[in-house]
Amino acid sequence: MEVDAGRGLGCQKTMDGKASNGFVSDKGIPSCCLKARASAPELEAKCHSTVVSGWFSEPQSVSDKGSKMVYFNNPMWPGEAHSLQVESILFKRQSEYQEVVVFKSSTYGKVLVLDGIVQLTEKDECAYQEMIAHLPLCSIPSPKTVLVVGGGDGGVLREIARHNSVEHIDICEIDKMVIDVSKEFFPELAIGFEDPRVHLHVGDAVEFLRHAPEGKYDAIIVDSSDPVGPAQELVEKPFFNTIAKALRPGGVLCNMAESMWLHTHLIQDMISICHETFKGSVHYAWASVPTYPSGVIGFVLCSTEGPPVDFKNPINPIEKLEGAVKHKRELKFYNSEMHSAAFALPSFLKREVKALGDSPNPAQK
Amino acid sequence: MEVDAGRGLGCQKTMDGKASNGFVSDKGIPSCCLKARASAPELEAKCHSTVVSGWFSEPQSVSDKGSKMVYFNNPMWPGEAHSLQVESILFKRQSEYQEVVVFKSSTYGKVLVLDGIVQLTEKDECAYQEMIAHLPLCSIPSPKTVLVVGGGDGGVLREIARHNSVEHIDICEIDKMVIDVSKEFFPELAIGFEDPRVHLHVGDAVEFLRHAPEGKYDAIIVDSSDPVGPAQELVEKPFFNTIAKALRPGGVLCNMAESMWLHTHLIQDMISICHETFKGSVHYAWASVPTYPSGVIGFVLCSTEGPPVDFKNPINPIEKLEGAVKHKRELKFYNSEMHSAAFALPSFLKREVKALGDSPNPAQK
Repeated sequence: MEVDAGRGLGCQKTMDGKASNGFVSDKGIPSCCLKARASAPELEAKCHSTVVSGWFSEPQSVSDKGSKMVYFNNPMWPGEAHSLQVESILFKRQSEYQEVVVFKSSTYGKVLVLDGIVQLTEKDECAYQEMIAHLPLCSIPSPKTVLVVGGGDGGVLREIARHNSVEHIDICEIDKMVIDVSKEFFPELAIGFEDPRVHLHVGDAVEFLRHAPEGKYDAIIVDSSDPVGPAQELVEKPFFNTIAKALRPGGVLCNMAESMWLHTHLIQDMISICHETFKGSVHYAWASVPTYPSGVIGFVLCSTEGPPVDFKNPINPIEKLEGAVKHKRELKFYNSEMHSAAFALPSFLKREVKALGDSPNPAQK
Repeated sequence: MEVDAGRGLGCQKTMDGKASNGFVSDKGIPSCCLKARASAPELEAKCHSTVVSGWFSEPQSVSDKGSKMVYFNNPMWPGEAHSLQVESILFKRQSEYQEVVVFKSSTYGKVLVLDGIVQLTEKDECAYQEMIAHLPLCSIPSPKTVLVVGGGDGGVLREIARHNSVEHIDICEIDKMVIDVSKEFFPELAIGFEDPRVHLHVGDAVEFLRHAPEGKYDAIIVDSSDPVGPAQELVEKPFFNTIAKALRPGGVLCNMAESMWLHTHLIQDMISICHETFKGSVHYAWASVPTYPSGVIGFVLCSTEGPPVDFKNPINPIEKLEGAVKHKRELKFYNSEMHSAAFALPSFLKREVKALGDSPNPAQK
């Protein structure tokens, strides 16, 4: 695997927007290239279109209005940006699907960025990975067969491995570069791939699920990026249909579901599709993740028709699973109280997203 | 009250760092003054040392390294910054205690900033105000006499007013400019001052509490800014002692208590002091507030010796108080499920902050 760090990647962009190191971007000339007084080593360590004066900001549409200042406005979260101080950029390349960047931040550890959007930081990845894995797996008795869609960093695999009952884990990740980068820079996450129960499939999850045996999985976890780029199909109805078919009766889906503060329309759409598709139950939960927009991330949890699933009161509490809490790495975020609490929703969300506020006490839903 | 907006405040800084409009800052020349191509109206509407290219970032120590870029690193949350797109700055003045700024953001409504730190935005103030008020007031039966320390914007008063049992509300805010600015720009919060039960005291809360009759209050809510500047004394032991004395037996304190992701040491210190001072119980709760650092804010909840208080299971649920949910403005964030869920703590916090993780099931504490 090729790692750019230390190879003097610098500011080798040519006039057509292609960098001489093969890094291609349509985001304009990196602003640090315009910084007259930057020293050569500084340029080497920190040059990227998302890094200005040593800070990374989540971009998407980058504007450089001739003022040597670059500000960002992502259509998924207009009008706000979160910035992290950059110590050095460790990796940056364009994969077949997206731009992959890894940098060392000053206070959140290493950071994985895909197409300019923070996917994980070492400091707070625990919240996302532990919640997306254990919310579904602790809600059913003895999960045995699990599918992960996306999740190429391996963090969700690491969490699934805490469950001794699990015998077989399929993971379908479309972008091999994400897996390779994680193995190189995020060993605490990529450790998930080392479990012998893991079967890696590099490819399109839509295609993979189309060929999956009906009723094969106890749980499917969709750990995708935002629904732009390669993950777009993963929020559409046909995809949810194939998931429902691949689940056993009473099997469960946990799907990344954006921010309750920013994306109530997306959440509404997803909940509506899931209600049509999953005849067991459909719920929304959320967790605090500082480096995600608005500081939260949501999850849609669904079950297929069959043995009922009480998502809010885990039947399979992690504290009672032998060795689970300390397996490989002690749980940092998740516990059974956090599990139940994740389903408590702000009043505005229950009003804005129909089907989340039907019952005065969702615990009875 | 003097409002600077529309008076061509622009970039009138003189060489000694004093602006000709009386605005004083030691934060260096506002970067927008250096922006060669900015138009005059743009300068007028957006000029402030925290605003670069139309974006506000939380500063404190501003660095201008000759590159015409300004980045910020607050000692309370080093290495990260949250930025909001600015439509126009509506107000900026130095009060006796702090710099007061109000701007209109593009997606979070109007924003109140004190000494460069976001205090509230119209979009997410509901979470903070509703939680800091109802966590204590719904935990005791029929609260009658309440004291608010700080809270000059009036939002906490608005929330307290939902409780019909309350007969008397004292508020002690040190900075009159905050109250005036709120009345001018945040009528949905300042409406709290209109309640006839409210008694406003402009002054030092430490002094106010020293003269408060012993056992006067059922509940005290400390809605202060971060423990730098005028709020420093509010996290020290003598202050908590005076609070405990001013509370009746079994009375409750709710104190703003920073971020569980960033400030475990501060939280540990505060919890330790409270354990020495409050002999009933001491708990930690938190809420999601997107525009606060790391996207969360915490609360320390304490009760004095006396009738026991079960903070996690509200004895005085807001849904059962006549007219409370829709009083003046419908509750946006708080409900009884959110109340209980706020006390569920991540495993890392229970490990890092002693006295929060003593019991395997904090619900039994």
